[in-house]
Amino acid sequence: MTLSHVRIVGSGLIGSSIGLALVAKGVAVTMADSDPRAASLAQDLMGLPPNESAPEVTVIASPLSTISQVINDEIQQGLNLGFIDISSVKTQPKVDVSTSGLDMKRFLPTHPMAGREVGGAESARADLFQGRAWIIDPQGVEGELLAAGRELIELCGAHVIEMESAEHDKAVALISHLPQILSSLLAAQLEGAPAQWLDLAGSGLRDTTRIAASNPALWREIISANHQALSPLIQSAIDSLQDLHAHLNEIDRVEEFIQSGNRGRSMIPGKHGGVARNYTYLPVVIEDKPGQLAALFDECAEAQVNVEDLSIEHSPEQYTGLITLALSQSDAEKLYRHLLKEGWSAHSPR
Amino acid sequence: MTLSHVRIVGSGLIGSSIGLALVAKGVAVTMADSDPRAASLAQDLMGLPPNESAPEVTVIASPLSTISQVINDEIQQGLNLGFIDISSVKTQPKVDVSTSGLDMKRFLPTHPMAGREVGGAESARADLFQGRAWIIDPQGVEGELLAAGRELIELCGAHVIEMESAEHDKAVALISHLPQILSSLLAAQLEGAPAQWLDLAGSGLRDTTRIAASNPALWREIISANHQALSPLIQSAIDSLQDLHAHLNEIDRVEEFIQSGNRGRSMIPGKHGGVARNYTYLPVVIEDKPGQLAALFDECAEAQVNVEDLSIEHSPEQYTGLITLALSQSDAEKLYRHLLKEGWSAHSPR
Repeated sequence: MTLSHVRIVGSGLIGSSIGLALVAKGVAVTMADSDPRAASLAQDLMGLPPNESAPEVTVIASPLSTISQVINDEIQQGLNLGFIDISSVKTQPKVDVSTSGLDMKRFLPTHPMAGREVGGAESARADLFQGRAWIIDPQGVEGELLAAGRELIELCGAHVIEMESAEHDKAVALISHLPQILSSLLAAQLEGAPAQWLDLAGSGLRDTTRIAASNPALWREIISANHQALSPLIQSAIDSLQDLHAHLNEIDRVEEFIQSGNRGRSMIPGKHGGVARNYTYLPVVIEDKPGQLAALFDECAEAQVNVEDLSIEHSPEQYTGLITLALSQSDAEKLYRHLLKEGWSAHSPR
Repeated sequence: MTLSHVRIVGSGLIGSSIGLALVAKGVAVTMADSDPRAASLAQDLMGLPPNESAPEVTVIASPLSTISQVINDEIQQGLNLGFIDISSVKTQPKVDVSTSGLDMKRFLPTHPMAGREVGGAESARADLFQGRAWIIDPQGVEGELLAAGRELIELCGAHVIEMESAEHDKAVALISHLPQILSSLLAAQLEGAPAQWLDLAGSGLRDTTRIAASNPALWREIISANHQALSPLIQSAIDSLQDLHAHLNEIDRVEEFIQSGNRGRSMIPGKHGGVARNYTYLPVVIEDKPGQLAALFDECAEAQVNVEDLSIEHSPEQYTGLITLALSQSDAEKLYRHLLKEGWSAHSPR
């Protein structure tokens, strides 16, 4: 099929970004929202007038807990090919919707793997899904709706990954929801700590608590909706922490605990999927002022090396910064020699 | 006083970096190590021949568990002003050393806040301590040794922060050791997960598990030596996780849990100490090829803006990258307009 008109209910970041992506590909989009002003803002952002034709599919981009209510409301106005669900949890909405009277052949569970910490139509981006994975669970879904869903995902620039809903929920519980919980747990322990202690914080604490700044209104829905998949993981984390706690002064038990973390960490794939690359790290000390990063990357371009990743570390109360560049081993050595020659404060790659 | 000769026992990253920093300031350094080859390598790296004069102080840079043994061995050869301890935990070495027969006035507990994940003399850097905090506990320490310790810290480019040993241990338990434990805990849960799940991992999982790659031989000593300060923090984390686990499907309880993480995270100071700055984030989509970062930073220099921080996110299986620049609000808006004018794929700052 070829999509000509898509209705999107929910004009937050994800709904509006799908809208923008479709409009960019010439598909008509109608934005709906329980808040009419939000729908109108989103429609304006699309830069298109309302369309009078009948939409072929309806994307539900409203909060998790509202999905079955939205479907109840929508089917009062007649049914098209069906609904595309894009929420972060897959089992709970299916259960909710199954009580709504909708034939489940008309409900396609999907999940674009492209969340951001910010919300709202004003943060929407047509390229939000570019190159991202977009999971679908095609089980029992009617062929035409499935085809429309696949087309919508491709129009958004994402690639389809098929995964059964229950497996999806276990996967995201592990790779997304548990990290959120442990990051929030750690950050919460900082409440009430003396400022002098926190002044000593390094990049380790900053990295591990970055996602603790996430939106509580979004995450309360995700975590509570996925409590079944999360529960055994949290129990396992509690067990493991209790075991460590009981043996905290036993050097061998502590070593085994850190080693198991080493093994798990090494399983996370690097850039472009595949096995994690072993980058070589090149530390460079720069003055912390405008233009220094630009000058450094000019040198990278001149040396014709590809920077895979980098981190910036600022010293407290000091106006210098440490940039650590991640490169292939040969690029790191090439750049190191180049930077020394040009008078930079670079240190041996490792 | 003016230091002329320092003996350093332990030629790992920290010991060798102190050596390099002192040599750069014209101080004679003698490196010692239980492994004579390591000592000789470190001495070579200093670029100096062995010195025959008597060292004024001895820095103990050997593993935590060896400190009292090292002191026992060293005092057989006669005593100078005393020992400067630089280990990551402060109470345990004091207890160990108090049984060694050394007058505790001759033992200065300190801790340079400048660890790295890599070890060995070959990773040492003269500027490792530049601008870093270096904690000392001057309580009961003889005046001349204390003056020598302060001078050594200043020669290394660090600034002295006085803190009592027990408080130090509580502070690092919270800001450094607990993050290590929770990061290792999370990473360990990934062991045995299907590769397809891990392929979906985003920057949240990567950030929270980065320090899970740390050295087990180092961390087993730190954690077990600081078990007394860590124990109540781990218990509090267990309690909090158990409480969440018991109420995992209650939306309000989950929200409060995420909110407490928000509050804790906001207490971590930003760059240069002080309160965390509210950066504005500017997303830019670039082609993932050499020269793109350089070109982007050229634009930053041209727009005369100061990039405070940045992150790089690679899409799986796709050769584009998302750079998120952190800037002041006015710089973010200035740079955004500049990048759009120059044809970059920049998105509204937020």
